[in-house]
Amino acid sequence: MSARHEEIAEALRQAIDGGVYAVGALLPSESELAARYGVARGTVRQAVAALTAEGRVGSRQGARRVVLGNHRSQSFAELRSFAQWAQSMGRTATGRVIEQFRRPADDEDVLRLQLEPGAEVLQVLRVRGLDGERVLVERNVYPAWVADTVERLPRDCKSVVQALYDEVGLVFAYGEHVIDAVAAGTRDAELLGMRRGAPLLRIRRVTTTHAGRPIEWSDDRYRPGSVTFAIHNSIGSNPLSRRAATDDPPREL
Amino acid sequence: MSARHEEIAEALRQAIDGGVYAVGALLPSESELAARYGVARGTVRQAVAALTAEGRVGSRQGARRVVLGNHRSQSFAELRSFAQWAQSMGRTATGRVIEQFRRPADDEDVLRLQLEPGAEVLQVLRVRGLDGERVLVERNVYPAWVADTVERLPRDCKSVVQALYDEVGLVFAYGEHVIDAVAAGTRDAELLGMRRGAPLLRIRRVTTTHAGRPIEWSDDRYRPGSVTFAIHNSIGSNPLSRRAATDDPPREL
Repeated sequence: MSARHEEIAEALRQAIDGGVYAVGALLPSESELAARYGVARGTVRQAVAALTAEGRVGSRQGARRVVLGNHRSQSFAELRSFAQWAQSMGRTATGRVIEQFRRPADDEDVLRLQLEPGAEVLQVLRVRGLDGERVLVERNVYPAWVADTVERLPRDCKSVVQALYDEVGLVFAYGEHVIDAVAAGTRDAELLGMRRGAPLLRIRRVTTTHAGRPIEWSDDRYRPGSVTFAIHNSIGSNPLSRRAATDDPPREL
Repeated sequence: MSARHEEIAEALRQAIDGGVYAVGALLPSESELAARYGVARGTVRQAVAALTAEGRVGSRQGARRVVLGNHRSQSFAELRSFAQWAQSMGRTATGRVIEQFRRPADDEDVLRLQLEPGAEVLQVLRVRGLDGERVLVERNVYPAWVADTVERLPRDCKSVVQALYDEVGLVFAYGEHVIDAVAAGTRDAELLGMRRGAPLLRIRRVTTTHAGRPIEWSDDRYRPGSVTFAIHNSIGSNPLSRRAATDDPPREL
C-alpha cells in the first residue's frame, strides 16, 4: 500500500499529464489541495515535492505553483539530458550511434568549445527514440579530452550524460541553448522517417562543467509533435518590476 | 565624448553581436578585460552591467559571465516583450493588427486563462516586423477584463505590453512558454511572405500578473532565420549536483 502523499502525487501527475492542469497554468494552493484530499498540508507538501523533483512543477508564485512540464514537454527549469527527462516522466529513452569519427575542429567548434585552432574533435551522429518512436537526431561534438571515454561507450548507450558521470565522474553542470526551427535536410528526413523540408525544432547547446569548461556542443533536431519545451520566467530586473505597485490585487481563487 | 566604460560596453556589444563571443560562450573575466583595455576593474564592471541590463550577458559562472544573446537572439533569462527585446538590442520593432474580434472562450482559452466556460475573450492577429522585415505572426487571446484596453490601442501599436502598463498600470510579471516547430499554414505563409509548409518556430505563452492572474495567452510563429532564442540553465536540484566533488578542477584560462 503506498503512502497517502504518494497517492496524491500520482493523482496530480495524472492531472498534469492529462492536461487538467496545463503547462503554464497554476496548481491549486497547498491549502486547497489539502482540503480536496482531506489531508494535512504537510502531506500535500510531500506530494508536490515529488512533482517538483520530476520537473513537472516549478517554484511558488504567491501561494501556488506553476506547471512546468508534462510527459510530452521538457522543462528548461534545470539542465537535464534527454534520457534523464524521459526517465523522470516514466518514459523510455533509447539512443543509437549512426556514425562517429574524429576530425580537425572547424571555426564553430573552436568558438563553442574554446579550443585551439587545429585541435581534434569527436563528432557523433545519433538517433534517439522515445517509447519506441524515433523523435530526435542528435549531432554532438566533443573535445579530445572527452573523446576517448565517449568512444568506449556502447553504441546503444541510453544516457551519455549518465555514462560519463559513471565512468569518469564528469558532471554536465551548465547548459546554454539556442533554439530555432529548421527544415529537415535529406539526412534528417531519412533518419526520422519524414519528408524532406518538414519543420524540425532545433536546439543547439553547449554544456560545461562547474568550472565552465565545455564538455560538448550539440545540435538536436526534434520531429514535430514529438516533444515540446517549456520555460518559465519573470520580469526579473526589468524596470517595470520596480514600478509594480499598481499591479492588480490578488483575486479570490 | 563618451565615458570609458561606455566605449568598452560598445566594444563588447560589437564583439557579441559579431560572433566573436558566441551565445553560450563565456566572456573573459573582469581582470582580463581590465588588463586588455587598460582600465580599473570597476570600469569594466560598469561596462558589463550595461550588457547585463540589455540581456546580452548573464550571471557569473566562477569569474566569468556567459553570453546570453545577441542582436539576433532573444534571451529567456527574463520575461521581455518582443518590442522590449528589440529596443534593448537597438533594433526597431513594429506591429500591425490584421484582425481583432470578440468570441466565446473555447476549451483552450478556459484552461490557459482560468476562465469560466462561456466567458468572452478578445482574439487579435498581428504581424510583427523587425528593422522593416516581417518576422512574426502573433495570435493573442485576452480575457474580458483586458479586452477594452487592448481594443483602444492604435492598430500599429509597437508594444502592447508597454501600452497596457502606460494606460492601466498592468504589469506582465510571469511568462510560461511552450516551444515547438510547426509548418506554416496558408495564412501564416501569406502573412510572412513564405511558402506554405515552411518551418516556423512556435512559442505559445501565458503571461500573468504578479498575483498569477492570466493577462493573455499567445501563439507566436517566427520566420526561420529571423530570430533565435537563448536559454541558460544548470543542473540545479539534479541529484548529480550533490555529488559533484569529482568534477574536474578549473583549468587555466
